[in-house]
Amino acid sequence: MQIRPHDDPQYQELRSRLREIRDLQAAASVLKWDRATYMPPGGVIARGQQIATLRKLAHDQLTDPALGELLENLRDFERSLPYESDDASIVRLARRDVHRALRIPSSFVATLSSHQTDAYVAWTKAKPDGNFEAVRPFLEKTLELSREWASFFPESDRIADALIAEEDEGMTTQTVQGLFETLRSQLVPLVEAIAERPQLDDRILSQHFDETTQLNFCYKAVDRVGYDFHRGRLDRSPHPFTTRLSHGDVRITTRVRPHQLTESIFSSLHEMGHALYEQGIEAAFDGTPLARGTSAGMHEGQARLWENFIGRSRAFWECFYPWLQGMFLRQLGQVPVNEFYRAINKVERTLVRTSADEVTYNLHAILRFDLEVAMLEGRLAVKDLPEAWNERYRQDLGIVPQQHTEGVLQDVHWFVETIGGQFQGYTLGNLMAAQLYESALKLHPEIPVDIERGNFETLHRWLQRNIYRHGRKFTANELVLRVTGKPLHVDPFVRYLNQKYGDLYDIHGR
Amino acid sequence: MQIRPHDDPQYQELRSRLREIRDLQAAASVLKWDRATYMPPGGVIARGQQIATLRKLAHDQLTDPALGELLENLRDFERSLPYESDDASIVRLARRDVHRALRIPSSFVATLSSHQTDAYVAWTKAKPDGNFEAVRPFLEKTLELSREWASFFPESDRIADALIAEEDEGMTTQTVQGLFETLRSQLVPLVEAIAERPQLDDRILSQHFDETTQLNFCYKAVDRVGYDFHRGRLDRSPHPFTTRLSHGDVRITTRVRPHQLTESIFSSLHEMGHALYEQGIEAAFDGTPLARGTSAGMHEGQARLWENFIGRSRAFWECFYPWLQGMFLRQLGQVPVNEFYRAINKVERTLVRTSADEVTYNLHAILRFDLEVAMLEGRLAVKDLPEAWNERYRQDLGIVPQQHTEGVLQDVHWFVETIGGQFQGYTLGNLMAAQLYESALKLHPEIPVDIERGNFETLHRWLQRNIYRHGRKFTANELVLRVTGKPLHVDPFVRYLNQKYGDLYDIHGR
Repeated sequence: MQIRPHDDPQYQELRSRLREIRDLQAAASVLKWDRATYMPPGGVIARGQQIATLRKLAHDQLTDPALGELLENLRDFERSLPYESDDASIVRLARRDVHRALRIPSSFVATLSSHQTDAYVAWTKAKPDGNFEAVRPFLEKTLELSREWASFFPESDRIADALIAEEDEGMTTQTVQGLFETLRSQLVPLVEAIAERPQLDDRILSQHFDETTQLNFCYKAVDRVGYDFHRGRLDRSPHPFTTRLSHGDVRITTRVRPHQLTESIFSSLHEMGHALYEQGIEAAFDGTPLARGTSAGMHEGQARLWENFIGRSRAFWECFYPWLQGMFLRQLGQVPVNEFYRAINKVERTLVRTSADEVTYNLHAILRFDLEVAMLEGRLAVKDLPEAWNERYRQDLGIVPQQHTEGVLQDVHWFVETIGGQFQGYTLGNLMAAQLYESALKLHPEIPVDIERGNFETLHRWLQRNIYRHGRKFTANELVLRVTGKPLHVDPFVRYLNQKYGDLYDIHGR
Repeated sequence: MQIRPHDDPQYQELRSRLREIRDLQAAASVLKWDRATYMPPGGVIARGQQIATLRKLAHDQLTDPALGELLENLRDFERSLPYESDDASIVRLARRDVHRALRIPSSFVATLSSHQTDAYVAWTKAKPDGNFEAVRPFLEKTLELSREWASFFPESDRIADALIAEEDEGMTTQTVQGLFETLRSQLVPLVEAIAERPQLDDRILSQHFDETTQLNFCYKAVDRVGYDFHRGRLDRSPHPFTTRLSHGDVRITTRVRPHQLTESIFSSLHEMGHALYEQGIEAAFDGTPLARGTSAGMHEGQARLWENFIGRSRAFWECFYPWLQGMFLRQLGQVPVNEFYRAINKVERTLVRTSADEVTYNLHAILRFDLEVAMLEGRLAVKDLPEAWNERYRQDLGIVPQQHTEGVLQDVHWFVETIGGQFQGYTLGNLMAAQLYESALKLHPEIPVDIERGNFETLHRWLQRNIYRHGRKFTANELVLRVTGKPLHVDPFVRYLNQKYGDLYDIHGR
């Protein structure tokens, strides 16, 4: 006799418990969105407490022994269904989440969280003066706690594995290192070759651009591309982010700078990429562990696909530039589209990751990843980190920070998260975006022409069908293999960069 | 040996449990605020579910037997402290909340809540056509459920007592009826006397007023009066409301209509009154059952004190009218302050409660209260409600609704709440406001002159010291007696109305 999945009372009980956990997590996300956008300053302390309570309750429910028992009892149910079935996937992912939550003791979570608060405060104080010594003890403690975190997963081959898998399920230190070494060996010479060519001129981008008009352009653009405003909002916040509150409510924020036109536009397109992914997940997955993007890397890949591969392409601006010109006639009325296209694609060896172009960006990310692993593996002491950082910038980018503010202290990650797992997602995302986009183009070579004409549906539907709708059902590795027929590799991204920047910088013979 | 309160480990445990319950309730309030202001339409279904989950968890925690046991163990602790002490009050109020929550079975809460959803939908459909028959069965069921609700409190003298006490702790059917009968006997002849006098002209208020400028005036006004924007916000929403998210975050909303200037102004002042109360509660009460206004009536009293007693006074507009004129020069530049003052105080026998003036308003509220009690006590069948409604309007206001849309179907209350307990708070609030304000004036006769000069501190500080800071520590009755030396009575309100409207309508010999 076949049991119809949804009639199984234990499965129903599981669903109802998972729904409650998701509701708590979603509530915490609403509270965080509000804090970043509209909350008055007086609310900050109580809000931190409220979010902590919701997280604690969600964690308590996830580690409730009754839930673990339920999952044990559902092993036969799960095995009776195909791997790809929604129901089996829900049980599988729930088991994975419970397993991870149980491995990390609550007391450790509290210690880590309290240390992170202190480390963050120390960082905000030390950063303006580039005072590394002031944060060194905090960073040493973070490293110690990160190692302890890793020790809860003794089955790992390498110490960073569990920290990486926390963000990018299915990835290991070894795989990532292999990909990154190959990529780096291609990027360093490409960046050198570009540096030898005459530089592109991007001064038109730093004129004064009215903030409200910039925001209006962003609304229009993300709406036109396919972001669903019926199920979302675009607001301003100091740090742009995307948040999923439910299938029907996926919000993005952006940052607007009056003298840097690209900030608002590319932040909006980046967050829109994250949001298209979340908006595209099966509605029926809401309230289950499937209802989010599958990994940090895949999420970043969706964001960067729209921000860079599309948003910095000629085709995109053939469509949107007339709108932008119309909104900023004084500033751009006399600037031809090709000049604008070249300005937004200027490659430059700089010190700051977040504002780096698409070619140099990955050198910033890879070196951070390598330093994380070296610290975790005991090959690099925290006290030697600034020197290692500067030396690596000299090697990879030919420049050295004059102060730690724009060197080792620039990123917040190590001061609010663990050391390990923080930076591989950015570059994995670029690799995924390239490999997926290459496959989409093989099947639909008309995509760039469609985009020129303002039709984004061909690509959007392809991503929807192949990536978005699955949510967390498949790992990023599984998705890449299913969709492109090959495991993740660096060639598509390298081909893309060589082609695009070979043309832009007129580099022959590559 | 004296036990120092905060060292008692059971008391500490109580505080920590209460804090968690408040965090869940506050989180639900954030989700509701967001739903009413910025949530995209697609979020509505999941949001309902999220709020329900938070409420359920808060209810589960409130009725957790371990909490009940803790409260039992703390009886000696409570008795060892004065009634007015913060710690004793926290235990006392927690016990009251737990007691009420335990009396009402969860299954009943679910039944009622699901019925209310259906009744609300039926009401929204039936209201436009005034189709009472379509909602009658729902209302009959609501009445039945309201009686069942009351039956969980068999110790009450009258069936409506527990429903009234739910909103206005310490009030009974008998007390309220006594106050309302006296008040009604004074109001009906006053309204008649006014109706015989030449009517005031308020046509200046229905010119076109730019919406953003209206909103700017509201910001300025509530800021000047004393609403703390560091710990609050003013936004627009379809139905104005106030919400407390923490001591540091008490938000208000208003509604703006381009052809009705008074809507935005008096809605803002009304909600500001609610918010001054919440902002004025002791910061240390946050996270305890003391951290909210003490009753529906007292809350409404604070709102109406600022909206009407102050906001519709000559003194207030001596201060603010020049600002308003400056913002609306074309519409008000030629209108003297006295004409504006008369326009905003026009008394008219109309059918709709929410837009009624301060004199007739209470007749609307009292008749609803009387009809609620009559239905609960079996003296009035739901099928006879429309007739009773119309007859009472004829008696009290001399007019009869031509259709149920502006008659018995006008208010949402009976379709989203119980029958019973819904309407007494409005009029109790007016009585409290009058009695408190009279006491404030006795001690500080300079208040109106201060207000004319834009100094609201004398009154604000008096309310802060005597009412706001206590939160829920004392019942409304206790506060009124402590502050005015007398139990709540109708004379101050009647004196206030006779004086003000006697002057405005030139009614002699009263």
